[in-house]
Formats: sequence, C-alpha cells, structure tokens
Amino acid sequence: MSLENRVDVLIVGAGPAGIMCANALAMAGVDVRIIDKRPVKVAAGQADGMSPRTIEVLQSYGLAERLIREGNQMHMCAFYNPGRDGGIECTGHIPDITASTSRYPFQITLHQGAIEAIFIDSMRAHGVEVERPKQPVDLEISEDVDELSSLSSYPVKVTLERLDPVCEESKTEIIHAKFVLGADGAHSWVRKALGIEMEGEQTDYIWGVVDMVPETNFPDIRNRTAIHSENGSCMIIPREGDLVRFYTQLSDTDVIDPLTGRVDKSKMSPQKLISVSRKILHPFELGESKEIEWWTIYIIGQRVASSYSVKNRVFIAGDACHTHSPKAGQGMNASMNDTHNLAWKLAYVLRGWSSPSLLKTYEHERRKYAQDLIDFDKKFATLFSGKPRTAENEDGVSHDEFLRAFQTFGGFTSGIGVHYSPSAIVDPKHQQCAENLIIGQRMVPQIFVRAADCRPVEIQDLLPADIRFKLLFFVGHLTETRVTELNALAEELRKPSSFFVRYSPDGNVSTVFDVITIAAGDKGDTNYLLVPAFFRPHWTKVLLDDTDMTGRQGGRAYARFGIDPEQITLVVVRPDGYVGTIIPSIAVAELDNYFGSFLTPRSFGAQFGT
Amino acid sequence: MSLENRVDVLIVGAGPAGIMCANALAMAGVDVRIIDKRPVKVAAGQADGMSPRTIEVLQSYGLAERLIREGNQMHMCAFYNPGRDGGIECTGHIPDITASTSRYPFQITLHQGAIEAIFIDSMRAHGVEVERPKQPVDLEISEDVDELSSLSSYPVKVTLERLDPVCEESKTEIIHAKFVLGADGAHSWVRKALGIEMEGEQTDYIWGVVDMVPETNFPDIRNRTAIHSENGSCMIIPREGDLVRFYTQLSDTDVIDPLTGRVDKSKMSPQKLISVSRKILHPFELGESKEIEWWTIYIIGQRVASSYSVKNRVFIAGDACHTHSPKAGQGMNASMNDTHNLAWKLAYVLRGWSSPSLLKTYEHERRKYAQDLIDFDKKFATLFSGKPRTAENEDGVSHDEFLRAFQTFGGFTSGIGVHYSPSAIVDPKHQQCAENLIIGQRMVPQIFVRAADCRPVEIQDLLPADIRFKLLFFVGHLTETRVTELNALAEELRKPSSFFVRYSPDGNVSTVFDVITIAAGDKGDTNYLLVPAFFRPHWTKVLLDDTDMTGRQGGRAYARFGIDPEQITLVVVRPDGYVGTIIPSIAVAELDNYFGSFLTPRSFGAQFGT
Repeated sequence: MSLENRVDVLIVGAGPAGIMCANALAMAGVDVRIIDKRPVKVAAGQADGMSPRTIEVLQSYGLAERLIREGNQMHMCAFYNPGRDGGIECTGHIPDITASTSRYPFQITLHQGAIEAIFIDSMRAHGVEVERPKQPVDLEISEDVDELSSLSSYPVKVTLERLDPVCEESKTEIIHAKFVLGADGAHSWVRKALGIEMEGEQTDYIWGVVDMVPETNFPDIRNRTAIHSENGSCMIIPREGDLVRFYTQLSDTDVIDPLTGRVDKSKMSPQKLISVSRKILHPFELGESKEIEWWTIYIIGQRVASSYSVKNRVFIAGDACHTHSPKAGQGMNASMNDTHNLAWKLAYVLRGWSSPSLLKTYEHERRKYAQDLIDFDKKFATLFSGKPRTAENEDGVSHDEFLRAFQTFGGFTSGIGVHYSPSAIVDPKHQQCAENLIIGQRMVPQIFVRAADCRPVEIQDLLPADIRFKLLFFVGHLTETRVTELNALAEELRKPSSFFVRYSPDGNVSTVFDVITIAAGDKGDTNYLLVPAFFRPHWTKVLLDDTDMTGRQGGRAYARFGIDPEQITLVVVRPDGYVGTIIPSIAVAELDNYFGSFLTPRSFGAQFGT
Repeated sequence: MSLENRVDVLIVGAGPAGIMCANALAMAGVDVRIIDKRPVKVAAGQADGMSPRTIEVLQSYGLAERLIREGNQMHMCAFYNPGRDGGIECTGHIPDITASTSRYPFQITLHQGAIEAIFIDSMRAHGVEVERPKQPVDLEISEDVDELSSLSSYPVKVTLERLDPVCEESKTEIIHAKFVLGADGAHSWVRKALGIEMEGEQTDYIWGVVDMVPETNFPDIRNRTAIHSENGSCMIIPREGDLVRFYTQLSDTDVIDPLTGRVDKSKMSPQKLISVSRKILHPFELGESKEIEWWTIYIIGQRVASSYSVKNRVFIAGDACHTHSPKAGQGMNASMNDTHNLAWKLAYVLRGWSSPSLLKTYEHERRKYAQDLIDFDKKFATLFSGKPRTAENEDGVSHDEFLRAFQTFGGFTSGIGVHYSPSAIVDPKHQQCAENLIIGQRMVPQIFVRAADCRPVEIQDLLPADIRFKLLFFVGHLTETRVTELNALAEELRKPSSFFVRYSPDGNVSTVFDVITIAAGDKGDTNYLLVPAFFRPHWTKVLLDDTDMTGRQGGRAYARFGIDPEQITLVVVRPDGYVGTIIPSIAVAELDNYFGSFLTPRSFGAQFGT
C-alpha cells in the first residue's frame, strides 16, 4: 500500500524554474510541494547569470539584497579581435547593460547553488522544503469533464518514488494534485509523460565551459569579454570571489567520438579546455589554474516545446520548455521568469478569484518569449561562433557587426524589453495616456518622494510580488477642481457595480487591489491630506513627482512617462510587475470589463471555494 | 567563596555606549564581557535618533543595512510659528540634514531596544552575550606601579552581584580585568566609584515626551517639526511604523512638587502631555491616541565629566560622561561614537601593537567633543525653549534666528563635522596636499569605480571598522614615469626601517595596514595591472577616479579632495574612519614618526605579549 496524499500544487524539479514557483506560491500561502531527484542542491557551476530584470523580480520577492551581497557584478563588456601579430587586441569597451531603464545597470553572476539557496531559505521561512531525492514515475490526468472543471477536485494523479527509501513501504507515494508543474529540466520527465514535443534542432556548435581562478595578465579578466581570435572564440564571465568562467568554442575533432558521432566528455578535460583558451588569449598569458571548480562541454540545441500545458492542469516551465545557448546568459533568467509569470495565476485560480482561463495567458506570454529567445540566440550564436573578419577572411564577422548585434539585443538580454502581447490581462487600448509606459512591459523604475515625509522611494518597491494588482492613480496637481474630481471618482469606484467592489473576494478591497496615488507638485508645498481618504489607505501610499531633499533623485516622472498632469490617469500593474492596462479616469468603467474578463465576481467566487 | 575570573575588558552597562564597545571588541576578537543591571533590554522609548555619521559608523561594522530596513527616515524639517489667529502656521521646510557630504542625507529614528538588538545579535554571532541582571558593587584599581604598567596583569578588581541569584553561592563574582568601561548611564555607578565629578548645571527647562500613534490633521506629522507657539514649544519626531514622538515644554507648575522643588512624575500623565501638545498645535487637531507606547518627563542637565578615565585602566563613556537635552538627537549618537573611538585603541594596546599612551587620545578627542556638544546644546535649548517673537514679545526668538542656528549647527547635529584636534594620531602638517580632506575629520564618502571591473564602490565601504589603518595611495595617472616612481616608493616601504615593516606585528603587513590605490584616468583606457603588485594586494583594491558605466555616479574626486594627480599622495585613515594624516610621497619617511609615536615596533611588541 502506497501513501496517498493531496496537494494543491505539486512541482517536479527544484532548479531555477521550480524554486521560483514554489517560493512564490509559498509566500502566497498556497498549499504546495516540491520534489527533486538530486539528493542535494547544485554545489557549483551550472547556470550563473542573473539579468537586470531578474534582479528586479527577485527584489519584488524581497530576495535581491542577498543576491547582490553574494554575487559578482558585471558592469563593463570588453571586445577583443585579431590584432596585427596573430594575437588578439582590445577593440573596445561598452556598458554590459545598454537598456537605459534598468534599475540595476549590471548583471550578477553567482553559482546556481548559491542562487537556489536564497529561494530555499525563503521557502523554508514559509514552511516549504524541497523533498529529495524523489522522482515521478507515473502521471495521469483525469478524463472526467466535471472533475477537470471543478476547483475542488484533484484531477492529476502522480506516483512518486523515493530514491533513498528506508523501507519498501516508504518507497512510493501517490499524490492527487489540483495542478502539477514540470520544472524538471531539458530532459523533462513530465514533458515526456505528457507527450509534448520539442520543436527546433541541434546546432553544430560545441562549447566547453570551465570555472576557475585564473593566473593571467589579461587586463579584462574581471569584465565580461567576447573574444574573436584566429584560434577560435571565447567568452569570459567573471564570477563571485576570484572565480572566472571561460566559454570556449571547440572543434568536432576535440570532442566528437568518430564512431558514434556523439559528444564524448572523456575526450576532454579542464586542462585541455584551458589550453584552448590559452591559444585564444595569446599574446596574453593564462597559467595553469590550481582551482578548477567545475567544467563541462555541450552542443547547443535551439528548441521550444510545442505546448506548455495539458488541460490547464499540468504545466511545464524552464529548460523543460526551451533550450538555447548559454552565452547570452538567458537560461536561468528565462526559467525563473516563466514561473514568476505562472505563480500568481495559479494562486488566483486556486483561491477562486479567477477563472481557469487566466492560465492560458501563461503559454501565450511565455512561449512567444521563448520563440523570440531562440530567434535571438540563433543570430547571436552564429555571430559569436563565426570566424572573425580578417584580411584573409573577408566574409568573417566584423567587430562592428558583432557590436551592433550586441547592442540591438540589449533590451532582450537584459530582460528589460520583454513585452507581452494583448490578451485578457494586457489591454493596450489607451496606450496614448502614458506613451512611455509600455502596456505589456514591466513597470519601469522611477524614484518618487513620499508626500508625507519626503523620503525617496523606488516605485518598484511599492509593487511587491504579493499577488495584488497595483492601481497607480496619477492625479496631477492637487487643485480644488482636482480634489472635487477625485471625490467623484472615489464615489464611482465605491459603487457595487465597480470592479473595485465587484472583484474584491471577501469584501475587503485591499485583498486584490493596492491603491497608490502619485501627485504632481512641489514637496515643500503640497499637503497630502488633500488627497481624498479613498486614495490614501495609508500615509505611505501618497507619492509626489519631485526630487528628494538633496535634489539628486527623483522628479520629472509625468514628463518621462508621457502622462498629462491635467488629467487623472490610472495605471494598472499586474501582480508580476507588468503594466496590464492604462485608463484615463473618464473611461474608468472600462476596467469593469478588463478585470471582468478574468476575475470572478464576489458572490460567484464564493461558490467555487474549496 | 565567590567565583573569581579574569577578563581583558569588562563593560558595565549594555546601553548604546556599552554595546557599541562590546560589539567592536568582540568583532576584533578581544576577550570581553558585558553586564547590565536591567533584566531585559529596553522595550520601547528612550533614545531613538541616529545621525548620518552614526549610520556611517554602523555601516563600517556591517550593521547599517538592518538599521535602515527597520527605522524611519527623517528627510525634511518643518517649522511652525505663531500665525495671525493665535494658532500656528508653517514658516518653511528645509532638509533635515544640511551637511553636504553626508552619505545618508537623513536621520533614522527607531526605538532604542531595536537598535540595541542589532548590536546584541552581532555580538552573539561573535560569541558575546549581555549578562543580566548584574551590577558592580565594588571596584578597586591596583596601586602597584609594576602591575599598572604591565600588559599581562589584571590590575582592576570588580565585584559583581547577580540580581536574580539562584543561590547565595552564585550571587557574587570577582572579576580581575585589564580594562573596565563604565557605560552605565547618567547615574553611573562606575563614575561615582572613581570619584569623577560632573561639571555643569541643571537647567530650568522641563520637558515631557510621549510616543504615540496620533490622530491628527497636522500635515507635517511625518516630518521632524519644530513648533514655537504662544502656548509653548513642541518638537515632533516621526518614528518607525506609524509612531510619532512629541517633545513638549512644560511649566514648573505642571510637574514640580512645590514642597520638594523636584519633578514629580505622578503630577503628569501621557493624556496631560497630549493636551499640552494639542494646545500648541492649534488650529490643527490632535485626537486622543489609542496607542501610547512610552512617555516620560525630565529636566535638562548640561554636564560633562571632569575626567574620562583613571590610570588609563578604567574608562567611562556615554551618558556617564555627558548629559544634555535630547532635542537635537545627540544622546545616543554621542554615546556610541565615544566607544567607537575607544574600542580600537583598547584592541591595539591589548594586542601589544600600541603603547598605553594611545588611550589618552580617547579623553582628548571625546571630552572636547562633549564640551562642544554642551555649548551647542545650551544655545539650541535656549532658542528652542524661548518664547517666540511676536508683536507683543519683540525680544522673543524669531523664526530666522532659530533657522540660522539650526543650519549653523548642521555639521554638528549630523555628526559629520566632528573634528579631532592634533594628537599622536592626528597630524595635520601636510593638510595642503588634500585641502578638502580635513585631517581629524571622518573620511568623506565618495564613489570610485574598481579599475578591474568598473563596479562603482563607496570608499567608506573599503574602510570597515576592522581595526586596520587604511593607506589610500592617490597615485594619479599611470604614466611610465609614475609607474617608475611607484616602484621606487614600493622599494622604500619594503625596507626594514619603514613603518610598513617595522609596525607589522607578526611580519604580515596586512594585519595592521590595508593598502588601497586610487588612480586617475579613464575606465575604458586604464590597465590596472600597470600598478606595481605592492600597491594591489588584490584586484579589488585598485580604484579609478571616474564615473560608472551609466555616468551617474563617481568621478572628480581628485578635484573635490584637492589632490594633485601629478603627485603621489598618501591618505592615512584610522581604524575608526577618521583621517589621521596625509603625506606627499616625497615625505613618506615622516610616517615612521607618525606611527612610531603610538605603535610598538615589531621586535619590541613581542615582549609585551600576554
């Protein structure tokens, strides 16, 4: 007899996608379990780069501080190309991050285990531990239409196997789950069990990677450096402490077994990888490293899963959905952002706040992103792996060509440019009300001052991932007329037919909606108490578009966002920090439709309670 | 039979002065114990203001992050004066912090218990706990000259009494200490045991203070606000969460017992204090507060101890040395900075690195500061407690007069202006080499970029309170000539006669000295590997005076400090973050005298080992 248990969400795989989801759900108070077949978490190597957008996301969960404390920062990017004497020479330096709205103008590198530890510690504080080593051996989804449509049922049956059982009885466990997430990597068991295909192909590019503490006189060893040499290409990624990662391109003969045609890791060693890098770095020296932390070799595959879910009950995320080259540092970021996108939607459906249709937006938003990622990766990998242009090879990749591509893709590699297309939760109709706050992109960082105490605050810090929609009321100047208009608007929003009341599940509007008011005006001269009580649930919630007392931070947000201070404009920010829609106060009734398309009205919601 | 034990440093009193010292010594690995007569730490109220300089000091111990997370910030200061209708009206807003070099342009308010907890947790991580409730009942200092001059002896005998003994045997303990610190408050038992007098007098100003969550329509309730009204004076200090502290001036009849002439707390109540504030705030409203966290009344005393130590073996610090009014928020700051000044000196002497004469600089530096504080406090308290100037009272204090004083004292109240006068550890001889880095003041904050990876760093973060002297070599541009000069300088410093070798106790120069090199030049264009190895013990130690990759931070430090990039200039920063001296490289041999005046040479030091 196996153990049988129920859980709302079962997550398979405790890599970046899995732990992001488990932590987000744990913080939201959702009943969640997470298993992993590895007996312990990753100790070294693997993915290691966090893009500026992912740092913003971690900050929204309160986890960025530790990441920043422990990680290395990459601010500068250096380029080297073939020089006169057969060696390489520096052809330029640019900022590592070119997206101008990045809150964090750098990438962070830190080994995957340290990043996972940040999430595991946070999950633990919310009562969730990774169960390991455990793996699924069977997965069945109910065919019963009623069961599938009922939120009180557990239509997914997963059989788990403990890999270190103390006795035969404790070996298997049957879990009945409402939802299952397969975040179990490129060779995903869940994906295969669902019969989901990967679309795309393997490339011919073979790369080696080694993490070490180098002895070298290469002056850019602590910068992200792209090297095109006549001896091959190399990417240098400085890491925490004195560690440096070298990605080096390998030739087939280095690593392919001529009999099988497959990569044979035994043909390689970290010493051989270092010697390849040494040739590329010439005339700079690279000594033998005493500390080699991790190494591997791989062939780049560029594939996307044909589907991200089955019956809106089982989902896949992360490497289970998409594989690509690691050199643009996107792997872990794409994975974490997949489940950052999914987690709040699961929470909404599980609480009966939202219809299951909301879950469809997960694939809509993230599969499109993955496809764009693969397209980008193809271009980038071709440029990167291509021969450099020299006198002898005029068809090669020129430095200018590479640099242009590098900068063009800046919005993409930083994660800042991610743009979700229209759907139930992205309505760009009134984009003209704030031309530079792009609907479907993440809310841009901006410093305001709190009207009550003139303390500078970053707007993103008022948009935590607390599964609430943030309603940012840009109210302009607090003139008498404006205050009258605000009182009228408050009255409108307090009506039972308003989305504000209609979609507040327990009658408490602050459960789903968080109101923030942003006035225009001078800090020494604006009385925040003029803002009607409806728009200031707490004194910390009224902001002013002005500089701080030093004059060094904040100000000019209305102009920057393209918002007219003579109007009242409402910016709706989704729980994941993306701008959902923007509405002029005159059209506020349209929000009843926006929220109505995926939220469940109050009285109706009660019937779905579990 | 009492227990008898030995300890290097015994600290009496776990208030701000005591815990700052205990934590600093614990972090330095010094054998320290700390006792307090209170059974538990302060739960609410008491001191609550941290000046910008004290925040910098906490940051140097790695403790500012938590303080900033938990505390309230005061950025703006508001002034109210009698208006036309007998009520008050706003006469202006200014920045709360006017000292332009403040790294933190705000004060932090947080109740004393929360601040103490930061230190207590840090001490605990270093193995030191506050022992309570315990108090000293006897203190004897040896009269034996040999014992007093030997570092291996324990010439101070203190008898401690446990206030909650489980049995008679565990009630008393005799401690033989090398050094004792009395940080036991205004009524210091240690000070009295030493027979040290307090000089100065009691004022006639009686004040009440109440911490509460107010119901009010006063628009500056979240700003530090000074109110002069015809009904008396009031200072508003916003606190963590929704708490606000009100300081209100009381009249004799409110609180003085006519029979004894002494303050009688039973004549007052928080409700009465609130009703005094209510009159002052008119025409603004102040409702009954449901949450009153703490309250008290007091008469301001303005006194300084005649001496800060006896035989360089027993010291007093904090309120035991100086009492003054709390309205400029200096109490806790003065106390913490007393022992921040003392702790590293005790560590140097205990390790045999320094002669006991170094300890004399504690009284020299901190007593002078306390006297200045009292002088400031007298002026400030008079202005603050004085009647406002009105048509009827032309001799009253005008708003302009008060404002002028407020701004004049900005350097003082922020703690930024603290300036230690010449002594063994402050040598201003070559001030002209860096006119704007004032010798005797704290090293000013400045952003540089790390030459190796262009990461912006705050120089203060490279000056932790790790009891090392920081040697900042401003080397200018890395021209060929300069590199030659640097190699010559390195050779000079490596000589056995150089302070660098002579005063490195275990032959390891990085035990006492930390080398940081700051070059001038462009970040895309400077090879930090040109800096001779002597001046870059690690790649993180070479900085560049340039902006970061965003162009928003850093740069222009040579010009700002008044340092000539055509010279090599060495700035010596003391372990407590104050500039000890500045030397042009041509006069580097003078540092042998500077350090020789208080450090113990290598071979000699060994004889003093304990």
